[in-house]
Amino acid sequence: MYDVHSIREDFPVLKEVIYLDNAATTQTPVPAVRAMEEYFFRYAANHGRGAHRLARETTNHYEDARETVANFLNADVKKTIFTGNATESVNTVARGFPWEEGDHIIVTLVEHHSNLLPWMRLREHGVDLTIVRPDITGVVDPEDISSAITGRTRLIAVTQVSNVFGSVQDVGRIVKAAHREDVRVLVDGSQSTGHMPVDIGSLDPDFFVAPGHKGLLGPQGTGILYIREPDMIEPMFLGGGMVRAVSDSGYEIEASPAKFEAGTPNMPGVIGLGRAVEYVKGIGVKKIEKHELMLARDAARRLAAIEGVEVYGPTDRSSVVPFNVTGMNAHDVAMILDQTKKICVRSGYHCAIPGIDFLGVDGTVRASFALYNTQEEVNKLVETVLNIAAFVA
Amino acid sequence: MYDVHSIREDFPVLKEVIYLDNAATTQTPVPAVRAMEEYFFRYAANHGRGAHRLARETTNHYEDARETVANFLNADVKKTIFTGNATESVNTVARGFPWEEGDHIIVTLVEHHSNLLPWMRLREHGVDLTIVRPDITGVVDPEDISSAITGRTRLIAVTQVSNVFGSVQDVGRIVKAAHREDVRVLVDGSQSTGHMPVDIGSLDPDFFVAPGHKGLLGPQGTGILYIREPDMIEPMFLGGGMVRAVSDSGYEIEASPAKFEAGTPNMPGVIGLGRAVEYVKGIGVKKIEKHELMLARDAARRLAAIEGVEVYGPTDRSSVVPFNVTGMNAHDVAMILDQTKKICVRSGYHCAIPGIDFLGVDGTVRASFALYNTQEEVNKLVETVLNIAAFVA
Repeated sequence: MYDVHSIREDFPVLKEVIYLDNAATTQTPVPAVRAMEEYFFRYAANHGRGAHRLARETTNHYEDARETVANFLNADVKKTIFTGNATESVNTVARGFPWEEGDHIIVTLVEHHSNLLPWMRLREHGVDLTIVRPDITGVVDPEDISSAITGRTRLIAVTQVSNVFGSVQDVGRIVKAAHREDVRVLVDGSQSTGHMPVDIGSLDPDFFVAPGHKGLLGPQGTGILYIREPDMIEPMFLGGGMVRAVSDSGYEIEASPAKFEAGTPNMPGVIGLGRAVEYVKGIGVKKIEKHELMLARDAARRLAAIEGVEVYGPTDRSSVVPFNVTGMNAHDVAMILDQTKKICVRSGYHCAIPGIDFLGVDGTVRASFALYNTQEEVNKLVETVLNIAAFVA
Repeated sequence: MYDVHSIREDFPVLKEVIYLDNAATTQTPVPAVRAMEEYFFRYAANHGRGAHRLARETTNHYEDARETVANFLNADVKKTIFTGNATESVNTVARGFPWEEGDHIIVTLVEHHSNLLPWMRLREHGVDLTIVRPDITGVVDPEDISSAITGRTRLIAVTQVSNVFGSVQDVGRIVKAAHREDVRVLVDGSQSTGHMPVDIGSLDPDFFVAPGHKGLLGPQGTGILYIREPDMIEPMFLGGGMVRAVSDSGYEIEASPAKFEAGTPNMPGVIGLGRAVEYVKGIGVKKIEKHELMLARDAARRLAAIEGVEVYGPTDRSSVVPFNVTGMNAHDVAMILDQTKKICVRSGYHCAIPGIDFLGVDGTVRASFALYNTQEEVNKLVETVLNIAAFVA
């Protein structure tokens, strides 16, 4: 039995608003915030940098969080790196990969800017880019990706769930096909992680990136980067905490994960993230997925049935529901939802202009669901959109 | 009147330990932690990414924090960028500067690894590096830096206060001399910011970096980067929130500071930092400086008077006091301080191996002071080191 009302007690702001902007960021549960507070008030110090009791306790809690996150994703803990956000994770790979002129990368048109621009920038260094188009619901045919592979293709970068369409890509098939051709794959799990089971061990991507602050419910300021072969990637930052020797003539870098975490880490954020992941695990990600899909698909179906409302994305969508009311700007719809019913949705191009351009619209309204949303909230959304559409007509 | 006992009420952990590891990281005051809690429980959302009330409130608080920090440092708010830590700030400049082969950089031997390794790495791209030596107390003669300038020198990177020696460099003179030769200067304010007045407007560095979590008392996971000419630096990360247009063929980047803050920012961290800076400002940085110097210099003087104890750094030191007990490993001294008297100090090479090598030692014990430390804590430190030294002798 999924007790959404008891879950909601852990997210105080839900008493004030209907929060349907979860694809942008989610709320953080009370136990995770309390874990951060405990860090600040009981043992805050720097990570791995001192022998005293506070430094040891901070280091232990930080590394425990790494183990929690790695276990949750079924990833090797030594290859599980903390970053500031998923954008930093992608850029770390884009800038640290040993590119050669003439190399080739494949991405899709449904990528978030954070999994598109870092690859586009490599064009300046002579790396070619192919952007594979999806069907009109935002689903990319894995065959189209396979067909785009050339002798120079080094990497395929693909999002598992589109934040524009709510479409789910068959990343398992994409990884398998790529590996047959000796091509590496980066999977962007920004909209999948915490919303559906993610098993890095069996998916076996070369790189996997995720924010800490979306489906994992951690604080903003946290991101995850899994690298299957950490030795091949040059670290983005050099500095304290990641070298074992330094002289006038050079330096010797530590092994992963220290290699990729120069400087003072975001200890409170990561410790909060670890607690948040335990929270998600406690409820069960399969149960969360079932609950979110029930809400999102019900919302999509009922919104699509309203005259003058267009819903985008496939029927077997994830928890993202983009739509428009004919004759109205997406921002105006979002503003009315907020002002009249305190319904928080996002509007615009969702940091994915090419995907929105592909739809041939100026932007969309996006309702996106999390574990704490309810059927009553869906009803209120549908009702209010119905009223807006009726008013416009 | 400086009421240290009332200040200490805002740092609960100080009831448990004597915390003298402030050069590594400081404790965060209760009001800053409460500001983060308020963010999580009352208005958390994503920055600048939605029209709804929570997104607006988050954006306002985040940008208010930027204004608070910029005003505190007397810096242009549009040139004040938030990063994950000071290490990221330095690396952003090192990787984003338009280097050409044959360019020349000057650093000093007293730099923290984070202000040394990023410049060393540029050697791989044909950039030359001169490392200027300090005197035995860790003070660098500005003349030695000026003399190292060649026709190809593009940048001088220098720390304002050494975390190894506690020495203060005359960065004002270094900046003036450099600018006369059209050379840019990066000032590392990791150990100065919040500990002494820092006025970017009058110092006029080209780049200024600082952690949020040392003298500014903010949470770990926050850093500051000031760039005088943001247009000249290419951003490290590309992604969401920092472009105004994207098509298949390219992208158009926003102006600073958005340009340098791709992806979801660390909103809770920055909001906590803003509140922490208000806290520092409320007490007054000049009063804090006076208090810290009184403690550090008293500790240094009395430790140096103990037979078998050597203290490093200049007499007119900042709040960092490094020392050794003859015949004992620094780590062992630190451990005894912790185990017997709950005194938290750091030991080792302090992420600055070349500086420690220069001293000709294996490492040092480092006591470093903050606004909340007391004369009683200094007394306890000195007494305990006296006992350790007596025991060894």
